[in-house]
This record gives sequence, structure tokens and C-alpha cells, in this order.
Amino acid sequence: MYISKSFIPILKNNPSEAKIKSHQLMLRVGMIKQSSAGIYSWLPLGFKVMKKIEQIVREEQNNIGVQEILMPTIQSSEIWKESGRYEDYGEEMLRIKDRQNREMLYGPTNEELVTDIFRSAIKSYKSLPQLLYHIQWKFRDEIRPRFGIMRCREFYMKDAYSFDVSDEEALFSYNKFFLSYLKTFKRLDLTAIPMAADTGPIGGNLSHEFVILAETGESKIFTDKRIFDVNGDQTKLEKKSLEDLRKKYEIFYSVTDEKFNKEEFEKKVSEENRLKTKGIEVGHIFYFGDKYSKPMNASVDLPGGKKDFVKMGSYGIGVSRLVGAIIEAKYDEKNEIMKWPISVAPYDISIIPMINKNDTTALDKANKINFELEKNNIDTIIDDTDENFSSKIKKMNLIGAPYQIIIGKQTDGDLLEFKEVGKETQKINLTEIIKIINKQKAKN
Amino acid sequence: MYISKSFIPILKNNPSEAKIKSHQLMLRVGMIKQSSAGIYSWLPLGFKVMKKIEQIVREEQNNIGVQEILMPTIQSSEIWKESGRYEDYGEEMLRIKDRQNREMLYGPTNEELVTDIFRSAIKSYKSLPQLLYHIQWKFRDEIRPRFGIMRCREFYMKDAYSFDVSDEEALFSYNKFFLSYLKTFKRLDLTAIPMAADTGPIGGNLSHEFVILAETGESKIFTDKRIFDVNGDQTKLEKKSLEDLRKKYEIFYSVTDEKFNKEEFEKKVSEENRLKTKGIEVGHIFYFGDKYSKPMNASVDLPGGKKDFVKMGSYGIGVSRLVGAIIEAKYDEKNEIMKWPISVAPYDISIIPMINKNDTTALDKANKINFELEKNNIDTIIDDTDENFSSKIKKMNLIGAPYQIIIGKQTDGDLLEFKEVGKETQKINLTEIIKIINKQKAKN
Repeated sequence: MYISKSFIPILKNNPSEAKIKSHQLMLRVGMIKQSSAGIYSWLPLGFKVMKKIEQIVREEQNNIGVQEILMPTIQSSEIWKESGRYEDYGEEMLRIKDRQNREMLYGPTNEELVTDIFRSAIKSYKSLPQLLYHIQWKFRDEIRPRFGIMRCREFYMKDAYSFDVSDEEALFSYNKFFLSYLKTFKRLDLTAIPMAADTGPIGGNLSHEFVILAETGESKIFTDKRIFDVNGDQTKLEKKSLEDLRKKYEIFYSVTDEKFNKEEFEKKVSEENRLKTKGIEVGHIFYFGDKYSKPMNASVDLPGGKKDFVKMGSYGIGVSRLVGAIIEAKYDEKNEIMKWPISVAPYDISIIPMINKNDTTALDKANKINFELEKNNIDTIIDDTDENFSSKIKKMNLIGAPYQIIIGKQTDGDLLEFKEVGKETQKINLTEIIKIINKQKAKN
Repeated sequence: MYISKSFIPILKNNPSEAKIKSHQLMLRVGMIKQSSAGIYSWLPLGFKVMKKIEQIVREEQNNIGVQEILMPTIQSSEIWKESGRYEDYGEEMLRIKDRQNREMLYGPTNEELVTDIFRSAIKSYKSLPQLLYHIQWKFRDEIRPRFGIMRCREFYMKDAYSFDVSDEEALFSYNKFFLSYLKTFKRLDLTAIPMAADTGPIGGNLSHEFVILAETGESKIFTDKRIFDVNGDQTKLEKKSLEDLRKKYEIFYSVTDEKFNKEEFEKKVSEENRLKTKGIEVGHIFYFGDKYSKPMNASVDLPGGKKDFVKMGSYGIGVSRLVGAIIEAKYDEKNEIMKWPISVAPYDISIIPMINKNDTTALDKANKINFELEKNNIDTIIDDTDENFSSKIKKMNLIGAPYQIIIGKQTDGDLLEFKEVGKETQKINLTEIIKIINKQKAKN
């Protein structure tokens, strides 16, 4: 893709309205454009990253056997009255009257609607467990939307729901998501720590937040440093193995501020292992038993002939928020250098030819290299403008493809100036470059 | 996928509320579930089909160089006041007040919002053409939603927008979409005829509807039968070649009822070539020059130093509606047999083993076959229930995978009972079956 043909409106300077670095970068390189308070359009660069994140989230849901559905954005108030949350939800719920004067709302979450789908279709324990997810836009009418897409009003979220016959089976489902989330964030090159958390307006009695460390985060976190060494790679999708994984994490004190207890923290964590910092919530899982199934009368026939309310959990990942979270984790704002994890990078590599007027040698060379790279499924962006070289480098450092090829005066023969962002430039040939990039891509 | 594990709630009989066959089938096999009037959830079977359609639409947009973005569902009323459409749009627009009492709306279309994005980013003719599209949920508050997802309120649509420096360039863009639409519908195994159409609330002076023939369609159409023989396969993405393609279609009289003129029809079309029938609109393209760019002040610098308003067109495809349109075209409701085009089929093949209690022979065989098929990227559904054989066949005929393998008493050795839906059963081995299916899939 030529940068001159792409719709990537880049700003010369950081926009003054942006207070945190993800918001700055996203406006600066035209990943998003605000359309009204807390509501954004996703321009091609931002859209590409979000779609790649969405796909990874999807694959890891499919891997644990969750089935994808899609619920609408606009819901009827009736099911929310059944569950009792219609009044509780307050002003964050965007309430709407349609032309027939019916009370509707823009779904801030989907426990009610998915329970309604479940109860209309499933009648017997034999059809359990059922795990369903969807990836859909949500709306929460924040009183003060801020930080770009990190605290906005219309946001993109994966939410999954589990339906089980008993607490024991329900915890098995819960633990599947626990593992799935660790794998998802790992593929995004993020270290996300599961933390005991409050259940808030979703309710229930068991909940974990998945939090990545970031100075700009809104959650205060208190944790034992050793939790970073826990590794779930060998975990199998079996009850025992999944339980063991959760236990390995739960040995270590690790909570958000709502659950923080100073005495307990200091008792359980030796001084050298204490970590108090801030983080960004990127996922949240809940177990809440029959909190919704009971008022909404979603029950199944049990083996003995009795009926019982189905046991439910819900599991969210903020897909649009992850775009910002990755920037918070990876963007070196002092040097204005972004490096996207290759799994979600908008382009794998940028090609930066030094172009003088009336001399197309470097651009021709760039086109040839591009042809070979694209043939090998490596997605490229070429800066085909005749701007000066340093401003081109600066631009590409912001766009954040993790690799660069620079075609300057010194480029001749087969050796190319190749660079992994943040590392030294090497002179190697194109075959080697393709090998390096495809090896990295294969890891995800 | 085992049918016993899948979330496919099948009804024994046709639901009485459904009047047309797509609505009947979609409720019958649990592709959708209504959540409120004209608003539906997409269950796994329906979701899979819609996603495959979406991907084909996306690929054909990318093939003509349109860049994907994503605009939000909730818009501010301000831009609609700029264009003058806020009052005009009437009650079909879902109007919303947020907690700050600001006038918002759920976007029924996106001319205003995309013009706002364009004007904030593009200042010079040098950056033209710009072609942008998104695939997003829309809402139109129909007074009488009906026919399931064919005339609903919340629907999924691809809408694209072109920005050009002159009428001539703009028509080049228009013609690119004209070709792209023909290719898109062909990959969906639909014969869509481009018809001169009214521009309606979008406005402008040039417009084509793409219509597929169906008795249940809401549009009356009047056409020359010979238009079905026009073929765009050799068309290149060049001005002249694209113009020629449109001319080849425009030789033949072909209009919807708003444009119908009896005298002209009878003069231009000889009696044996006249076709009066009904159809379903699946795409609609518009050229409207500066209808939005002028009131919204979206102008670019021209070569000579002057400025002019950018010339725009818009291009829609109803992605969710296409699910229904394909059913209308392909479902034999008398015999209750659906056959999805392989390009969008929810499963490529169904495996139907005859299972008696305490005898797992046929199921074991099905599992082995399934293993080989999935290894070859063939997506399967296995009926692992112990229902009687004829009800299993009936169910799979409704689900509509285009191929079936039946494992009955007579199955022994390597030869399998294999059937393409609507054709004779053959006895062939698994290697042959894989070859046949993958050959069909490769065509798309």
C-alpha cells in the first residue's frame, strides 16, 4: 500500500486535547476520529489493528468450544425489568423510545438477552454446557468520556456466557475462560494478571479482572511480583488441570483497590515482592450462579426429573479498548516510536525509499521489494512521497510497523538496510528478511 | 461439530407467524431469534452464513481498492442538520437523547458522517480518489417490520462512499462499484440484475438497484430477458472497459416500478423478451455529485488553485438481507430442501450416521470420516443423535449443507453413500469426496 493512496491523516504535532499516550498516538496517526463526545470512527489504520485483535479473541474463544452468535445492539426494556436491572442501571444506560413509544435501550451488556435466548431453546441438562459469545458494539453513557477509546461511550466488546447444570460444572466453564484469556493476551504480547475483583453491577460471588500494568491505568493494583512467573502453557482443557492453573495464580496476593486490605497484603507478601502500581482492565470474568436465570425463569430438567435454574457466568474482553491498552504498553512516547506486536500490526513492514524529484530509482526498488514481500503474505506500507527522509522515518516510527527497510543512497546490490524497530540496522538480503518476519508471524 | 453440542434450536413445524420462505426457514432451523419487533439475534447457524457473506462482500470491495473503516452506530444530529436531512428523514430515524440531553440518532446511513471524516482529512485533488467503506449495523424504525430479516429495523449493511475531483472521475468510481457488485453477487451464486432506479432519500441523478428475481420480492421489475446473458467476466478495472460494461447492460430496458413506463417498455422490448416479475433489492448505488459536499463544505484544492466541492457517490449492499435473499432464491419449500451455495454454507457437508442404542459402529465411522474431512478444511456437521433416520435426513435437508454422507446399514468398505443435495446418491470413496468438495470451494 502506498501511503499517498491510503487514508492515514497524520498530524504534525500531538493533539492538545489528548492526555494519555494511546489517545495521543491514535489521533496523531489518524487511527480514529472523534465524531461526538466519547464516540469515534475507526479509520483504516485503527480499523486494521482492531480487526486483528478481534480475530485473535475469536480464535481463542473457538478453541475452548464457545459458539459465536450475534445479539442486536438495541434491546427491549422488558427483559431488563424481568431481571430487575432496568432501574438499577441508572443513567449510564442509553434509554430510547421508538416511534411506537416503546421503551428500548442500547445494550450496555447482554446477560438478559442471552438468558432469553437460552430459555427459549434449551430445556434439558443433556444439552449442557452451553457456551455462547458475541462480539458487538455496546453503549454506556459515561458522564465524562475521556482518554479516547479507553473510556468512551460506544465501544466494541466480546462478551461470552456460560450455562451449566451445577456449580461444579459452572466452575469448569469459568476456568476454561480463565485459561482462554491468558492465551488471548499472550498472543497480543501483553502480560495480563488475573486479579480477584469485585463483581459490581453484574453481580455474583466470584470474579477476576485481567489487568495489564500501565502507569496511565485507572485501576490501582496490589500484587505479589512472583505472579508474573506463573505460566499456563501446559494447561489442558480438563477440570483438574484448569483448577491447578487457577490455584497457581491464587497462591499470590493480587487484587484491585476495591478488594485491597493493607494488613492482608503485608502479611501475605514479603516486602521485596510487593508491587503497588496501576493497571488497565482488559478482561473481566464473573460467576453469578442463578442471579439472572432465577428471576428470568431459565431452568432445565435435571437427571432425576426435577428442574433447577441454570448456573451462569459471563466473560468480557474489551476489544476496542485493547487497541489503546497495547499502545499504552508499547509506545515509547519520548522518542515517538511505536512498535506493534506483529500479531496485530497494521502492516508487517514499512519500506522507506529516499525519493528525489525526477529520480524513481529508489521507488522502483521499493516496488520490487514490495512485490516479493506481498507474494510471501507480508503486508507492507511504502512511503512513496517526496518528503524529506527524516520526516518519513518519523512518520513510520509512529505508524508502528515492527520492521523497516530503508532504501537510501547506500543501497546497492542485494543487501538491504533492514531494521527491527528498537534494534540495530542490519544489512541482509530479502530472502533473509522474509524468513525473519515469517518466523515471527508463525509464533502467533 | 456434533449437532447435539451445537446451539441449533430446530422447530418441528413451520412457525405460523412467518409469511415468506426465508423467514420460515430461518426460524425453523434456529438461524435467528426475534428479540423485539424487527430486531433479531443471530444464532450460530445464521451467524456463520452472514459472516461468510460479509467476507465475500469485503474481499470484493478490497479488490477495487476501497479502504475499510468503521463508523459508529450513534451519531450526533448536528451533521444531519448541516446536510438538511435531519427533518426530512422523518420517523424512520431512531432519535435519541443522551444523558446530557443532546440530540443523537442511530445512523440509518452514513453520507453525513463520512463527509465529515473526509473534509477533516483531505484538502487536495492530489489525494483523490478516495474510496471508503464500512460494514456496520444500521437502524431504520420501520412502521411495520415484517418478513423476518428482510424488512427489519436493525440490519447489517456494507456502505461505501467515493470522493472524486470531477464528474468524469466520479463515474469511473461509480463503474468500479458496478463491476464489483456483479462479482460479489456472482460469488454468492445469485443472478443480480442492475436496474435503473430512483434515488429516493439519498438523492442524486444516477442510480442502479441490483435485484434478484424472486416471487416473494417487494419490488416489481420490468426487464428484457436478454439482459441475463450479459457477462462482465472480461471487464478490466479501467475507464473504458468499465464504461463498456455498463453500456452492455443499459442497452436492455430494465427498471423497477418507480421508473416504469409502459409505452417505452413495449416499444423497446419485443413481446417474447418482456419479463414482468418481482425481485429483491440486494444492492443500490448512487451518484449525487455535491449534494452533501456543498452544504457540508467539503471542498478540495484543484490544479489551477481554485477550490471545488468534492463529487460523491454511495454504494450499499444489505449483508443481513442477503442471507434471506439467498434462501428465497435457493430454498425448495415444498420438499423442505435447502441447498446453500458452498461459498456461504454454514457447513460444507453433513454426516448422517444411523445410530442404534448401544451400537456405536456408525458413529465411530462418522468420526473417522469427520477427522479426514476437517484435516482437508472441509467443515462438517454430524448428526450424533439417536433419532430415527428419516427425521435426521429431514433436519439436515433444512440446515442445508450442500453435500451429505449417509452412513447406514449398507455402508461397508471404502465406498460411501455420498450425495450432492438435489442430485443422485453416488457410492464413492472419501478421497473422491474430498476432491469434489474442494474443487467446488476453489471456484469461489
